[in-house]
Amino acid sequence: MNECGEDETLDAILGGSLRIVQPRGGYRFSVEAILLGRFASVRPRERVLDLGAGCGVIALMLAALRRPREVVALELQPPLAGLIARNAELNSLSAVHAVCADLRKPKIAGVAPASFDVVVANPPFHAVAAGRESPEHGRKLARGERTASLEDFVGAARRYVRNGGRVAFVYSAGRAAELIYTMRARGLEPKRLRMVHPRIDRPATAALLEARAQGGVELIVESPLILYERADVYTREARAMLESRA
Amino acid sequence: MNECGEDETLDAILGGSLRIVQPRGGYRFSVEAILLGRFASVRPRERVLDLGAGCGVIALMLAALRRPREVVALELQPPLAGLIARNAELNSLSAVHAVCADLRKPKIAGVAPASFDVVVANPPFHAVAAGRESPEHGRKLARGERTASLEDFVGAARRYVRNGGRVAFVYSAGRAAELIYTMRARGLEPKRLRMVHPRIDRPATAALLEARAQGGVELIVESPLILYERADVYTREARAMLESRA
Repeated sequence: MNECGEDETLDAILGGSLRIVQPRGGYRFSVEAILLGRFASVRPRERVLDLGAGCGVIALMLAALRRPREVVALELQPPLAGLIARNAELNSLSAVHAVCADLRKPKIAGVAPASFDVVVANPPFHAVAAGRESPEHGRKLARGERTASLEDFVGAARRYVRNGGRVAFVYSAGRAAELIYTMRARGLEPKRLRMVHPRIDRPATAALLEARAQGGVELIVESPLILYERADVYTREARAMLESRA
Repeated sequence: MNECGEDETLDAILGGSLRIVQPRGGYRFSVEAILLGRFASVRPRERVLDLGAGCGVIALMLAALRRPREVVALELQPPLAGLIARNAELNSLSAVHAVCADLRKPKIAGVAPASFDVVVANPPFHAVAAGRESPEHGRKLARGERTASLEDFVGAARRYVRNGGRVAFVYSAGRAAELIYTMRARGLEPKRLRMVHPRIDRPATAALLEARAQGGVELIVESPLILYERADVYTREARAMLESRA
């Protein structure tokens, strides 16, 4: 039996221990999603919510790596929500549950406010500029902001996380100030920040941020995460994050 | 003739090209101040304001390195303001003018609102906790927040910078989220951020941030600044910043 259709690919991550079916075109998960799956602190038996989960890569990683009680993967597009369920079954990760809904809705059946220990998200990095629309509808929904804005993502995270719980996002470094500002304005206090640089001597491309709902003011800016030692050669740390088995 | 008194020291920085008299006890300038003097973008003929200037190290560095039209060094404590004037004379940097005033005052004679191209500051890193007062009054004023808070520093920066001008601060990495938030809330949009790490594998200790008054939303998170290669051995970049001649 084929595990994926003609318009899909089957990709193995974490040294082959996690297999992910995803669309050949349209939404595809990124290295940043995998970095967030490693960065977010999730303890055994905790309940986790993944906002805008795509094919579920972050939810599946957390389920495989951290043994949470449950990971709810919220996704707007029905075909992707269906993929999440298939990927959970393919990897025998019964803690992952796909919910197909718009994160901007004030009420979502089965997703109770303030009921999650951890909320994670990899929001679209770039707003879609007017008149520059991608021909692929799926990609546009996933990568543009026609659907949910950063404000929407942060607002939903605040709604669903319990007081004292954690919210972990990966976002473009170019908009890291906006991310920090928006989190703080919603009572999510930044506690851990890690900048991702392609090379030690290059500007950051992404920012990993963990905030605490109603936390105190003290941030740890962790050591920079450097991806490449030289062209095409990962640093030891990046290789371990991307390739170590679950 | 002695250039400094018994309760003072004479320190040479930038490879001996800048000499700074400072109090033996109480306020002393830090490595972070020197890093800000290198980090801040100042173009020839620009007008610069240094808020809470201490002995004037940042103002003097900028005058020596960038040839601005004028650097106004605002300092609350009269003995330190006097030192700034002596240090300017000692180094023949006639662009530096000391003004003794409280940066929280809404009006300061000779310091016009929106008249500076660049405002720089190295605000106190730590709030003085109640009941934990330093015995040295000077140190308390300089390092505590009995005088001006971060809000006060950012508010003054916004008041004195022209629209489109730049504001550059160095601040504790542990409060970098607060700095970014406070800047943004005042219409100072973060444009360049550089984290300072003692070692490549350690959390940051300081954050260098340059914002633009009414700037667009796009931040460059520069390559991390690593201070030490190994114990007591500066990295090449840190050595150049601390020791290169003006």
